[in-house]
Amino acid sequence: MKPVFGTIRPVVVYPSSGTGAWEAALVNTLSPGDRVLAFETGHFATLWRDLAGNLGLDVNFVPGDWRHGVDPVVLAESLAADPSVKAVCVVHNETSTGVTSRIAEIRRAIDETGHPALLLVDAVSSLGSVDYRHDEWGVDVTVSCSQKGLLLPPGLGFNAVSEKALRAAESARLPRSYWDWRPILEANERGYFPYTPPTNLLYGLRESLAVLDEEGLANVFARHRRHGEATRAAVRAWGLEVLSLDEREHSPVLTAVLVPAEHDADKIRALILDRFNMSLGTGLGRLAGRVFRIGHLGHFNDLSLAGTLAGVQMGLALAGLSVDRGGIDAALSVLETT
Amino acid sequence: MKPVFGTIRPVVVYPSSGTGAWEAALVNTLSPGDRVLAFETGHFATLWRDLAGNLGLDVNFVPGDWRHGVDPVVLAESLAADPSVKAVCVVHNETSTGVTSRIAEIRRAIDETGHPALLLVDAVSSLGSVDYRHDEWGVDVTVSCSQKGLLLPPGLGFNAVSEKALRAAESARLPRSYWDWRPILEANERGYFPYTPPTNLLYGLRESLAVLDEEGLANVFARHRRHGEATRAAVRAWGLEVLSLDEREHSPVLTAVLVPAEHDADKIRALILDRFNMSLGTGLGRLAGRVFRIGHLGHFNDLSLAGTLAGVQMGLALAGLSVDRGGIDAALSVLETT
Repeated sequence: MKPVFGTIRPVVVYPSSGTGAWEAALVNTLSPGDRVLAFETGHFATLWRDLAGNLGLDVNFVPGDWRHGVDPVVLAESLAADPSVKAVCVVHNETSTGVTSRIAEIRRAIDETGHPALLLVDAVSSLGSVDYRHDEWGVDVTVSCSQKGLLLPPGLGFNAVSEKALRAAESARLPRSYWDWRPILEANERGYFPYTPPTNLLYGLRESLAVLDEEGLANVFARHRRHGEATRAAVRAWGLEVLSLDEREHSPVLTAVLVPAEHDADKIRALILDRFNMSLGTGLGRLAGRVFRIGHLGHFNDLSLAGTLAGVQMGLALAGLSVDRGGIDAALSVLETT
Repeated sequence: MKPVFGTIRPVVVYPSSGTGAWEAALVNTLSPGDRVLAFETGHFATLWRDLAGNLGLDVNFVPGDWRHGVDPVVLAESLAADPSVKAVCVVHNETSTGVTSRIAEIRRAIDETGHPALLLVDAVSSLGSVDYRHDEWGVDVTVSCSQKGLLLPPGLGFNAVSEKALRAAESARLPRSYWDWRPILEANERGYFPYTPPTNLLYGLRESLAVLDEEGLANVFARHRRHGEATRAAVRAWGLEVLSLDEREHSPVLTAVLVPAEHDADKIRALILDRFNMSLGTGLGRLAGRVFRIGHLGHFNDLSLAGTLAGVQMGLALAGLSVDRGGIDAALSVLETT
């Protein structure tokens, strides 16, 4: 797991969903009432905020438009205005919006303020699909899980942990036992877990890592970038709008597409599911009915993408949207030339 | 799951190990510093005590000899002496000792004191193998998981929850989010989970429940009782001692066997593993080196048991113990006549 996270340090594995790994990142590093800075980049950032609130943390949740990632400038200003912040929570790839925040720039922005806050990053839907560098980017806790880029069923949660985060765990006072890193890291050194590990998924993980290694992580990342670019080319050729607005932030693993106001995105999704047996992502939270999401995540190749986009194009036409039929061609041009 | 737990109420399912379901039982019902009464019946009772301590609960841990279950009389005396107790924690089947505590009698003992403490029961290694009645016995939270009597790999944790426990959850103040029953029960009513469920194990669970249903739970329980009885008959015929001392408490799912003081149980285990490719349970905690454990749990039949006991008998002889070779016959007599 270390190369996938971009770390030379041990990675903590939980029998849990990604939500459990979110909780673990917080309870290992923070104390009741601690101030946390987070950003409303979409549905999952909002859920993480809710979780932190449930645990008794005091979250400063900077509003956002669900079409941008975390702005490093806004982050620096927020930190400067709020010196008591103990941790900054950032969702790397917002699965609800198809926007990928720029973690390296975020780290630099924090460093320039000289603020000692921990940087906690949700890499649930990016890990293993999008270039990620826990150590190089100075992330303190990276949260992830098994069922996205790691190609597995749900049931494994991960925390990659910096030296600084481990030090914070020594004084953190949120009650913890199941999520406590220390007994897990200690038992792992001897080849054990402090409680029953999710053995079947660990066998699967070994195979997933072999699959990623065979293609080569750099090639995996390039494949996802190409698929994102080809998908956006199709969307634009159809005359529709990609939700993500900043060229630097388009997600390589999924593309959220805005539908014209007179159409219901969920009706289009239902039609495509019924007619072509393809399930697109729904609009989550405030995007309900307004977007559908095209996933190009995990074990996916050029022809799967072409088939996916063909299904979307036919579905849009059948739903009565006047889409330009050049969408597929636009995508294929990208796939052919990159 | 309801018939397996003996409840008509919903059962909470977590993506977790059983340890997570232990934690869930505590954080949903208790507040920081709350007094908990627990009993040193073996290794797992001790681990649950440790977990409660890690969460900031104040545990009164009644010492025990690891050869008996919870004594209802001692429990009643302890409760009477300690009116501030908020919850009583009992391990139904101690996997480390092969002793099964008598939950119905424990419930009666609590009721006779009139004490309002919640009854939290670990049914990790009993559920689906030993008769268990969450509602009838008035258990407030029953903790279990997937990898024992439910015949699955690890990765599902369960809490069966009484009305009284749900009410306690309203005022409990230990921080919780991932383990919080309320959003899970609410989402389950609509057929959803509040976070990613462990889908592959849920498919497996459907099949496990069909397997148990096909045999019939009463038959499953009777099969385990017979196997326990046959195993103890073999152990006694060999001239060895069953760890469990009280006839009313012998476990139907495993039998821990004391080895004579001049022998090391782990050496016998290693010999049997090497020679017959059979892995017996090790002595845990204070029993290390002193016992080995014969599992007769889960999907197991008469001939599997006969093979298991044959392996033990040959291993004991090869290890130099002067065992009576009538052990297998004694076991077969039980299997033939019950």
